[in-house]
Amino acid sequence: MRISEVGESGLLQRIREWCGGPQGADVVVGIGDDAAAVRVPAGTLLLLTTDMLVEGIHFLPGLATPGDIGYKALAANLSDIAAMGGTPGHVVVSLALPPATAVEDLHQFYLGLLDLAREHAVTVVGGDVTASRQGMVISLAVSGWVAEAQLVRQEGARAGDLLAVTGPLGASAAGLVLLQRPALAVGEAAAAAARQRHLRPQPRVAAGMALAASGKVHAMKDISDGLAKEARLIAEAGGLEVVLWAEQVPVDSCALEVAAAANEDALQWALAGGEDYELLLAFAPADRDALAAACSAGGCRLHVLGELREGSGAWLQHGGKRLPLAGGFDHFA
Amino acid sequence: MRISEVGESGLLQRIREWCGGPQGADVVVGIGDDAAAVRVPAGTLLLLTTDMLVEGIHFLPGLATPGDIGYKALAANLSDIAAMGGTPGHVVVSLALPPATAVEDLHQFYLGLLDLAREHAVTVVGGDVTASRQGMVISLAVSGWVAEAQLVRQEGARAGDLLAVTGPLGASAAGLVLLQRPALAVGEAAAAAARQRHLRPQPRVAAGMALAASGKVHAMKDISDGLAKEARLIAEAGGLEVVLWAEQVPVDSCALEVAAAANEDALQWALAGGEDYELLLAFAPADRDALAAACSAGGCRLHVLGELREGSGAWLQHGGKRLPLAGGFDHFA
Repeated sequence: MRISEVGESGLLQRIREWCGGPQGADVVVGIGDDAAAVRVPAGTLLLLTTDMLVEGIHFLPGLATPGDIGYKALAANLSDIAAMGGTPGHVVVSLALPPATAVEDLHQFYLGLLDLAREHAVTVVGGDVTASRQGMVISLAVSGWVAEAQLVRQEGARAGDLLAVTGPLGASAAGLVLLQRPALAVGEAAAAAARQRHLRPQPRVAAGMALAASGKVHAMKDISDGLAKEARLIAEAGGLEVVLWAEQVPVDSCALEVAAAANEDALQWALAGGEDYELLLAFAPADRDALAAACSAGGCRLHVLGELREGSGAWLQHGGKRLPLAGGFDHFA
Repeated sequence: MRISEVGESGLLQRIREWCGGPQGADVVVGIGDDAAAVRVPAGTLLLLTTDMLVEGIHFLPGLATPGDIGYKALAANLSDIAAMGGTPGHVVVSLALPPATAVEDLHQFYLGLLDLAREHAVTVVGGDVTASRQGMVISLAVSGWVAEAQLVRQEGARAGDLLAVTGPLGASAAGLVLLQRPALAVGEAAAAAARQRHLRPQPRVAAGMALAASGKVHAMKDISDGLAKEARLIAEAGGLEVVLWAEQVPVDSCALEVAAAANEDALQWALAGGEDYELLLAFAPADRDALAAACSAGGCRLHVLGELREGSGAWLQHGGKRLPLAGGFDHFA
């Protein structure tokens, strides 16, 4: 059945059913009213973030299932909350849908989104649906909270700081290449891992909280637009120069395998591919062990891959050469 | 200059400049980081709402200026906060933009949005920009807060309650007709008023707060999809029957003038036109004077136009006849 057959009120009723079930005691008014009303812990800062996904640009319907798309839309927002050191709370979901959209596809979209929401105790508390003239457009806004003392920004890095990430990179780009070129000769384990990392990335929520709680992180961002771009942003926000050490960039093993088959450079994917949703953080060298422990408590591993210095500019130290650090995704370039 | 010429980072820099200026002390992290971090008053509930506007469906570029579109996108969200009795706080703005969009048009969009934001002490704290394949898609999410004792929902109406609105209706629909048919023979004062009500509706934020503070409102919604539909929703949420009295529906005088020229029925516009963004509320007859006073304190006037009774169904009492109350906007019908 198409959504044009159930109409707007039929659609809203279904969405309420899909997102219903046990709501936390923190939800005073959920889906269906003019606005949601929720409780947030006293004495914390409210975090707000939003991400928009456009069919044909952020996802290709033939390559990702509706469930994957719903999952990833939420993952991108949770990753932003994680990058502030926060706890995600509630989500509102706005959708522009072609009238010919299948109700079942929309159901699968919500199931994928709710899979990840449940994992992080996040509740869908509202949204908006409207017709689209071409393709699906998804916009999520997510609230969260953080104790002010634990808030971590993108600015705050200091000269002498190390830069590290919370996991290997490049797998998301490898997964996309593999989805577009399924005939590539890649072992099934690596192929499945790469596809999973592209379609269902794990936002580093627990790690973000553990790192922030250490009080030792000077600056943090999530890697949505590629390591190179995010590292430049941290450096610029701190008025510093950044150097990444190519040999220390943790390239995901599945990315290496896919890159070999595709005759591409996995390091480039790690630097500029984006959508890995690991966290990138700056901290004093003396705190390296403490942060490795916090990272481990958050279920991942700290990979040191560069440093920040007095000055400006962004560089990649590669086999004795120093190259300008370019790359990263630009929607309008 | 087109946005494809300034690129994503150039665009983000401009948006930061446009939305910058003095930020309230409540904004700890504003535009530019992974998420915004803001202070909300202790002991209140957080309100969250979102609205999506699609070019060609919610607005026609030739008929509304970019400034009008920005203004109205925020107005629709502030109206939702008002309908809960809340104070609006912060907004995140997600935009899908055709690469050929003029930077100046986008600037005008933000100027329109910021006009209204300033009026309500609302701050733009974040957002997302991405490319669109066809037309502009706008998604705003707005936070607000309300003391739990003052929260007003759409459910809560009781048998015997009166229904009232905070101002005359139908002007928004009249304004749209006039924009589509500019040659209609309508006096300039009425024409200007109708266009203004369609393009730059006033969300009833002060009235919503004053009404909620009275403690006497049983249920409230804003009129975004037409009086008939919102009245049905309040009745259904309360398990009640609703009767609207056609003769008491306050039809805007400019709507009457435009309808006469267009040979249309202004009452239908008032019932089903939508986008008037007045508030619709249910309350006990004994509290009518107190609520009229609250409404007046909020800068508008209370118009009683119907009642809620035991039972179910929705009716329009019109010249001695009782007609089924149909109408209201459905995006997929």
